[in-house]
Amino acid sequence: MTLDDLPTPVLLLDRQRLLRNCARMRERAASLGVSLRPHLKTAKSATIAELAHGGGKGPITVSTLAEAAYFARAGFRDITYAVPIAPQKLEQVAAIIRDGTDLKIITDHVAVAQAIAAKGKAVGITFRVLIKIDCGLGRAGIDAESPELLPLAAALAQPDAELAGVLTHAGHSYHAKSVPEVKRIAEEERAATVRAAARLREAGHACPIVSVGSTPTALHADSLQGVTEMRPGNFVFFDLFQAGLGSCRMEDIAVSVLATVVGHHHGRNHLLIDAGGLALSKDTGANEHVPGTGYGRVCRPDAALPLPGLSIYDVHQEHGLVGGPQAAPLDFGAFPPGSRLRVLPNHSCMTGAMYDRYYVTDGGTGIVAEWDRVNGW
Amino acid sequence: MTLDDLPTPVLLLDRQRLLRNCARMRERAASLGVSLRPHLKTAKSATIAELAHGGGKGPITVSTLAEAAYFARAGFRDITYAVPIAPQKLEQVAAIIRDGTDLKIITDHVAVAQAIAAKGKAVGITFRVLIKIDCGLGRAGIDAESPELLPLAAALAQPDAELAGVLTHAGHSYHAKSVPEVKRIAEEERAATVRAAARLREAGHACPIVSVGSTPTALHADSLQGVTEMRPGNFVFFDLFQAGLGSCRMEDIAVSVLATVVGHHHGRNHLLIDAGGLALSKDTGANEHVPGTGYGRVCRPDAALPLPGLSIYDVHQEHGLVGGPQAAPLDFGAFPPGSRLRVLPNHSCMTGAMYDRYYVTDGGTGIVAEWDRVNGW
Repeated sequence: MTLDDLPTPVLLLDRQRLLRNCARMRERAASLGVSLRPHLKTAKSATIAELAHGGGKGPITVSTLAEAAYFARAGFRDITYAVPIAPQKLEQVAAIIRDGTDLKIITDHVAVAQAIAAKGKAVGITFRVLIKIDCGLGRAGIDAESPELLPLAAALAQPDAELAGVLTHAGHSYHAKSVPEVKRIAEEERAATVRAAARLREAGHACPIVSVGSTPTALHADSLQGVTEMRPGNFVFFDLFQAGLGSCRMEDIAVSVLATVVGHHHGRNHLLIDAGGLALSKDTGANEHVPGTGYGRVCRPDAALPLPGLSIYDVHQEHGLVGGPQAAPLDFGAFPPGSRLRVLPNHSCMTGAMYDRYYVTDGGTGIVAEWDRVNGW
Repeated sequence: MTLDDLPTPVLLLDRQRLLRNCARMRERAASLGVSLRPHLKTAKSATIAELAHGGGKGPITVSTLAEAAYFARAGFRDITYAVPIAPQKLEQVAAIIRDGTDLKIITDHVAVAQAIAAKGKAVGITFRVLIKIDCGLGRAGIDAESPELLPLAAALAQPDAELAGVLTHAGHSYHAKSVPEVKRIAEEERAATVRAAARLREAGHACPIVSVGSTPTALHADSLQGVTEMRPGNFVFFDLFQAGLGSCRMEDIAVSVLATVVGHHHGRNHLLIDAGGLALSKDTGANEHVPGTGYGRVCRPDAALPLPGLSIYDVHQEHGLVGGPQAAPLDFGAFPPGSRLRVLPNHSCMTGAMYDRYYVTDGGTGIVAEWDRVNGW
């Protein structure tokens, strides 16, 4: 099977780029002296989780309980569910733990910590919990110096629960304007978790796990002294956002959407393709770093790099508009209806979520494998 | 089963609002003297397609061949696939036609029209084709006065194919600033298709179908003289965008996402909920009409209307942030972790696409049915 045999839109994955990206991040983790717990919210694939570890079902991070259950079924035994837990979800967490997986959960709220301990006692499970620390993103978590830290730890103390450690995510690194700024944020991320862990240990808690992670900070941190693990996720694929931020080169982006030209609009100077807002997502964040990226850049199916000056300037539900009134005049004859284009995504986590599988290539036009994904909740 | 028993995030559907919205649009079609061919790209549900018709498997519109195949399997026999056809997709169209469904396709390109005729001859099927007309949206289609109209019709003339009619979509009505402007666009939509049909008939073509449709123009058109059918889709559910545009009241919005509070961030004055960019979509179009809508408005689970002043001001993949630094100080005690909120979506077509089913209520907290959806391509 080749690209020509595929219906469109479909999600393509370049295995060679994936393997290179994974090797790079393993080297980073090794050189920083931390273990790698990749966040599978991006790839949502058991095959890719193994490749991220260079083989083997190592520790992973997930963003939904659907992912937790899927990876547990696939044999992953050390999973952190890195979205604050809702008390109602503890029953489902308990079921996965009972089936033999060390599924850790997180919270930053004393009432939830108390609910976890109570539920654990009621169902006979010692939930392992990380305290969420806010290192500057301002989404979830408490400050490392917060007076809530020790009450949280007390609520999670054995025998009712087990305080497994502290965890943070420097998502604000995505908006850094330079590599020095990413490095500064990486140091704040490290320092916040190490400080919280120190306070917990001073108070007599073990705090074995000190967990940080975002793709930009994982790639640029100068030191992770005191940290035990990192949880980058996007690095397996990268995307136009990460390329614009400086995390990767354009030729490292491993996923793309294969689309077909279905029309020409001469008056508006655009090609119409069958990949629109659903096939690509409506995430326009990549324009923050590179204005004019629109909803994605387009490549010839067999080319490594995007066509210069061409992007998707608008999307409707099932329509993508390539070129547009602001672009250079299109050579419509070079893109007849039925011709194929690959779209490099703005944000691979969002784009991937619409597809139930990857069509895998080795960079050429042949399909060498199909890998499944877990979507939904 | 009640709302309390559901995992989150899930997609809720208020059946009473749905039925009222459907009845309203049937009355509009009847009073305008046209048939209703609802666009199922929004609902993607066979049950809802029947309800849109007030019972019975009437004519419908779809946006993907996955939808076409799903509705054909469900017994719908008159379907228009209203995205310009790619030549590679004709084999799949032919298979659906062979199974007994009148599946019509569209194009605006002479080379595609020729490919359709050639493919029809090769596989022994007379494809029924509508010519796509651009009435001002500028996405796809040719002008009603275009010199390409008659060559397109000639390429689609029997016996090799069958010119079924003309079709347009006034999607630019979504950006109108007033009801008079919607009315003006509705008249342009009508006039463009009627003019194209007249030119085709003068040239000896039958052109039986004259098809228009968007939810705003369907609701506000003063006349559809000369038109045979309309294809609104969003009206079954509406959303915050349509409410902002004036197509509906807030209490007509029939779908919402049930979410759970998973944290509090006092420093940023927000609630954290477990519905983020994937559960809600990153469509922010509703802010065009009502700034401050963010990524959606929130309601108590059993309330008909959103909480005043509260919206989702930011989303990450699995996190929604309610309130925020610009909002009035939150009463955190009123929203403890584990409490539930319903999110009214900005754009129901995009939000719905992440879910494989509807949990149906009659406006209260009881779940009265589960209806499936068809996603993907």
